[in-house]
Amino acid sequence: MTAADTQIVPPALGEPYLLTPGPLTTSRAVKDAMLRDWGSWDGDFRAMTRAMRTGLLDLIGPGADAYDCVPVQGSGSYCVEAMLGSFVPKDGKVLVLANGAYGLRAAKTMEYLGRAFHLVDKGDYLPPRGDEVTEILKEDPAITHVLIIHCETSSGILNPVEELADAAHAAGCKVLIDSMSAFGAIPLEVERLKYAAMVSSANKCIEGVPGFGFVIARRDELEAAKGNSHSLSLDVHAQWAHMEKTGQWRFTPPTHVVAAFLTALEAHAAEGGVEGRGARYARNRDVMVQGMRDLGFETLLAERWLSPIIVTFFCPADPKFDFDAFYEAMKERGFIIYPGKLTVVDSFRVGCIGQMDEQVMRQVVAAARDTLAEMGVASAAPPAAALEERKKLAA
Amino acid sequence: MTAADTQIVPPALGEPYLLTPGPLTTSRAVKDAMLRDWGSWDGDFRAMTRAMRTGLLDLIGPGADAYDCVPVQGSGSYCVEAMLGSFVPKDGKVLVLANGAYGLRAAKTMEYLGRAFHLVDKGDYLPPRGDEVTEILKEDPAITHVLIIHCETSSGILNPVEELADAAHAAGCKVLIDSMSAFGAIPLEVERLKYAAMVSSANKCIEGVPGFGFVIARRDELEAAKGNSHSLSLDVHAQWAHMEKTGQWRFTPPTHVVAAFLTALEAHAAEGGVEGRGARYARNRDVMVQGMRDLGFETLLAERWLSPIIVTFFCPADPKFDFDAFYEAMKERGFIIYPGKLTVVDSFRVGCIGQMDEQVMRQVVAAARDTLAEMGVASAAPPAAALEERKKLAA
Repeated sequence: MTAADTQIVPPALGEPYLLTPGPLTTSRAVKDAMLRDWGSWDGDFRAMTRAMRTGLLDLIGPGADAYDCVPVQGSGSYCVEAMLGSFVPKDGKVLVLANGAYGLRAAKTMEYLGRAFHLVDKGDYLPPRGDEVTEILKEDPAITHVLIIHCETSSGILNPVEELADAAHAAGCKVLIDSMSAFGAIPLEVERLKYAAMVSSANKCIEGVPGFGFVIARRDELEAAKGNSHSLSLDVHAQWAHMEKTGQWRFTPPTHVVAAFLTALEAHAAEGGVEGRGARYARNRDVMVQGMRDLGFETLLAERWLSPIIVTFFCPADPKFDFDAFYEAMKERGFIIYPGKLTVVDSFRVGCIGQMDEQVMRQVVAAARDTLAEMGVASAAPPAAALEERKKLAA
Repeated sequence: MTAADTQIVPPALGEPYLLTPGPLTTSRAVKDAMLRDWGSWDGDFRAMTRAMRTGLLDLIGPGADAYDCVPVQGSGSYCVEAMLGSFVPKDGKVLVLANGAYGLRAAKTMEYLGRAFHLVDKGDYLPPRGDEVTEILKEDPAITHVLIIHCETSSGILNPVEELADAAHAAGCKVLIDSMSAFGAIPLEVERLKYAAMVSSANKCIEGVPGFGFVIARRDELEAAKGNSHSLSLDVHAQWAHMEKTGQWRFTPPTHVVAAFLTALEAHAAEGGVEGRGARYARNRDVMVQGMRDLGFETLLAERWLSPIIVTFFCPADPKFDFDAFYEAMKERGFIIYPGKLTVVDSFRVGCIGQMDEQVMRQVVAAARDTLAEMGVASAAPPAAALEERKKLAA
């Protein structure tokens, strides 16, 4: 694969690129697929649902025959809740490994469910590590499941999912993965990770539009999930059983979004699947991060934790820098960036996913350079406090 | 308004009309609105969300200032669950007035929630009446809320929502309405009905595409809903509070579906709002029902209960009639009809909603006539058992 093969088509005139973690910039072909109405009960749409489920299972590598894919209407957080509510029995206990907003949201979900959990909060960007998981599971034998956030979008950190899954399995726990923003671009092979279930969403690395997500779970876990769910709508077992029996979604599916997703899945395969997609995103990140560093920006994370999904930069210390003004000026130039989500220091994020290649990333860097000049920001260097924070990560 | 003003545009070549209760046939303009990607955090999209909420409140008549509109990602059933989970306190009790699948689904939702409910199951098509509600509320003073299904799509019956709401209020109960398939075409004025909350969906009478629904609730009910919900994702209070504070949806919204819905709302207003939309659907029903009766078909319901949303017909008694073959032949002619959902006798349904007018309905009738002829069905008259059933309704 070369960059040229990916056939990136720029958005329509006047439409900015979304440098966000999804909804993201999708191809015109994906959007064109929404120009038709489908009857959700009709055989044609049932065939589309079947093709989508099969296509997604193709992405998890050998061993997929022990798994099934269950789409769930709603956003990614709905899918996380559906997974937790369906696969964790009412007397189960979940170790939630949090290092950002999404991990904390999962903990909050467990509170709503009224089910037991043990929260490890690593703060804004420190990765949870295998040895601490081993330690916790030794100390708290009531834990039955470990929830891993694959890529924590708050900081853009790529968590060490293999070592975490290994530690969980060594202690006899089941593994649940929130791979919302990573699935489709970063391998999540079941043979290696042996997860009980994982969730992701239509509008992330597969490059569809938002409206549903999906659970990929072991069939025996799907069977065993019967009766666990706290919610009719988010009952993965019920959705799966109904789909297996009738080929239909239990409740009205977002038909246009599903049609778009099928087109997105085809493009994903044409780009070389997980490997090809991941390679483009990694190039996007490398080109963009290098360019931003050349302007004086610093990344929150050290090299080894930088995901090819989204990257957090510190806001410059220069008092002439103002994020809202920077945001608007970047938007004016055709690029919608993403605000930061850190608690300690000011930051912003730039996404690497969606219909973009390194040419676009060079334009992003050029736009940032021009915007800084326009604002009269002489140096993009972060405040000393930010670098102090970052040191903790290296420690 | 005349039929010509509605500017119905037929679907693209080869695309059938959806004579279904939604997803339905939408206009090309609605679908075209999905040809752009929106950043869900961006100010442009926040403005769209605001416009949508305001536009929906405009449909409930005078008194709307005491209410607010909260969109909820997912299907209509998600919204029903969100409403029940958010507005019924954990120690509340709901009288569920069921006469079909959607009422029974609401009861099932209450089971999941583990909250008290009293189910009145009127079977497939008998309407619940005000006096029996009065009776039940007298006998069961623990009941705090009455759930009314506005149009029960299983049979197409339009339930007597005013008399039911009056009976509930007379007993000091709060009223919750599932107006999924009726809102936007049948008046649901808050001044008259004084509901605590109601729910509907993007892909029904407003003629958007599926992907979210919405709750319209009294502001004081929204305030009081804090802490009630069993689900993070379906917590209407939390969604509302976040939206009020930030202008954003808590979790990723179906951006394209929202854009389509805004276009649909504009067309709804241009057609004359609830009145204009309802008038077209009523004409659709009248023309279609008359035509089908002329062919010998009989409606399940007596005239007064027929909704302008969807109509149930008995399957003909003639042994040459086969529903699956009828469905395929109708589809071949460009019309996707809907299977029946009755438990006692065979039936099918024909929807009156979506981008269709009486011209289209005449074509539907002609297609049914030709299909019957092709199948060699001499008479579309239903079996005697069906008419026996129907007699009960008149009694």
